[in-house]
Amino acid sequence: MMRVAVAGYSTTKFSLDHSPIENLLFSATKQIFQNTKNISQKDIDAVLVSTNDTKRYLAPIVSELAGITPKISHSIESMCNSGTNAIVSGFSYISSGMADVVLVVGAEQAENPGQVLDWDASRGEFQHPIFWGTMFTKAHKRKHRTTDEDLAYVSALNHKNAQDNPVSYNSKKYTIEDVMNSKKLTDDLRVLDCSRSCYGSSAVLLASEKVAKKYTDTPVWIEGIGQKTTSASFTKNDLTRLDSTSDAASQAYSMAKITPDQIDVAEIHDAFSVCELMILEDLEITQKGQAAKMVRESYQTNNKKINPRGGLIGSGHPLGATGLAQISEIASQLTGNSSKRQVENARIGLIQNMSAAATSSTVLVMRQ
Amino acid sequence: MMRVAVAGYSTTKFSLDHSPIENLLFSATKQIFQNTKNISQKDIDAVLVSTNDTKRYLAPIVSELAGITPKISHSIESMCNSGTNAIVSGFSYISSGMADVVLVVGAEQAENPGQVLDWDASRGEFQHPIFWGTMFTKAHKRKHRTTDEDLAYVSALNHKNAQDNPVSYNSKKYTIEDVMNSKKLTDDLRVLDCSRSCYGSSAVLLASEKVAKKYTDTPVWIEGIGQKTTSASFTKNDLTRLDSTSDAASQAYSMAKITPDQIDVAEIHDAFSVCELMILEDLEITQKGQAAKMVRESYQTNNKKINPRGGLIGSGHPLGATGLAQISEIASQLTGNSSKRQVENARIGLIQNMSAAATSSTVLVMRQ
Repeated sequence: MMRVAVAGYSTTKFSLDHSPIENLLFSATKQIFQNTKNISQKDIDAVLVSTNDTKRYLAPIVSELAGITPKISHSIESMCNSGTNAIVSGFSYISSGMADVVLVVGAEQAENPGQVLDWDASRGEFQHPIFWGTMFTKAHKRKHRTTDEDLAYVSALNHKNAQDNPVSYNSKKYTIEDVMNSKKLTDDLRVLDCSRSCYGSSAVLLASEKVAKKYTDTPVWIEGIGQKTTSASFTKNDLTRLDSTSDAASQAYSMAKITPDQIDVAEIHDAFSVCELMILEDLEITQKGQAAKMVRESYQTNNKKINPRGGLIGSGHPLGATGLAQISEIASQLTGNSSKRQVENARIGLIQNMSAAATSSTVLVMRQ
Repeated sequence: MMRVAVAGYSTTKFSLDHSPIENLLFSATKQIFQNTKNISQKDIDAVLVSTNDTKRYLAPIVSELAGITPKISHSIESMCNSGTNAIVSGFSYISSGMADVVLVVGAEQAENPGQVLDWDASRGEFQHPIFWGTMFTKAHKRKHRTTDEDLAYVSALNHKNAQDNPVSYNSKKYTIEDVMNSKKLTDDLRVLDCSRSCYGSSAVLLASEKVAKKYTDTPVWIEGIGQKTTSASFTKNDLTRLDSTSDAASQAYSMAKITPDQIDVAEIHDAFSVCELMILEDLEITQKGQAAKMVRESYQTNNKKINPRGGLIGSGHPLGATGLAQISEIASQLTGNSSKRQVENARIGLIQNMSAAATSSTVLVMRQ
């Protein structure tokens, strides 16, 4: 199996300013051409677009805008998990020998209707993500005695990290009190516990081992991949466990031949504050019930190991771009390019992404 | 590179009867389970959905409906060329060793708005496919002295073949006169020159060489793959050439190590009657300007080599299902399962699919 490297990456400014989906896709693509040495349009074998947008034929459209005439071009959608699905697809084109260079580009508009799963009788009237977010929160509180203050630390930490991320949608500082006093949306969730849908785009250039060095002196290798879909509807036995994430993590650790304690830096999908706690536990980065303590310590010691760019809560959540922005951040961290956000001596990085109450998850392990 | 086989296939009845997209996807999937020996839900590593529908998360949804919990699940869209893109993606997951069994399932609803490309200033007011269809027709008439009667033979032949296809949407017989007297839509195209958007679904089960024999005694191998995107907009130098198709064909012939004269049976994308002529020429199945003569002879001699199931004009065109229905037909032909439609001694089959005025194309070569 041919090894696959991240040879280039870019993330545009996340914002609430309206921009057409084509422009968002083109902006991230243009940055890849500006950031990556020796890259030429004719080198690109495949263009994969990650989005939940309802516009069709976006991969040929962004190809034409950028002057690329690829062999393979199509859109990939799996709600919030689209970007990481597109990366795994790009990985397979390269590792099978069908392509040497794959451009994966993702984008979303804040008001895109595809952000809420409208199929699923099990969710009843409660289709908006905030309802599964609040059910997860109730369950975590009950099982692990998690407090509102514990949750507030997740939000405050992510917002603090986002201040050093020049492309985050929000660079305001929020204290624990600010979070706890923010508007209550449900019994258990306040507005600052939630990630914010926004406009944004991100792109990742994947290259085979054969050609990666042409485009970068510091390739970052995708060494572990795990994916799992457990269902589409919100039918769970244990509301304190994200089964698809723990399954995907086992696969990824096994493929990369690492244990969770070896991870130096991780981007995880904090759709709601409770998700960050559950994910840290299900990735076995910490023990069950210990994540709140870990987050509190990270806040107090300024430890940026988890979500250095500010996660979804701090930097914003343009669905189709999120997975790619996570990968861009880890690639940046592992090559020492994260300036104020830099985690020292980061050698092994992890990405965890998921959709729709973690009914599906992707976990990637990357190494310098 | 691991070899990849079609180990199962199904196509549901194409019709104009409304059916929810989830039901269409589930119907084709259910048929795969009914038609394929030893197949079990737990064997399926990936579920790829091909559709232009605007509903999200359809791959996890159809997985849940069918009791599958795959590793990989997402939707793939590239307009009419979606199904064949999804097959090439499934091929790459298997040939890279990341999966052994991939279910690809496609469906469309007749009134889905995603059937018309609404980006593209070069098309001006003429965004509906019929306008590029008519421009192609004018150019072919001018260059090759193609007549309205030549075009009518394409439609009559496809409708004749569709009569032996139990899942075609239309089983009426049309004479040359019927076609020529059908309603004129543009200067050059009549209603019976056009393929018909409809409801329908189709599924293909791909399996690695390692496991294919568990599911079928007669695997059909995907031996040649070619894909090309030249643009998204209707910007062409020569309106009598489908550049993406000829480029994809060269790649596929070279990978499969065949010449076009070795093809025994082919499914090609006759969106409009003129497309069938252009494709036969660009695939080099016949010489430039000779396709009309070939079609006329096929009609007179009852030769079913081209579009034995009736093509898009005869059997209907549910966008996301079309590429998979083409592959199902070729798999059926190469295993001698096409009853009245059977082409004798068919050993090598070809699929040509394309999107949006052939701005992108896929060509596959399959062998028993």
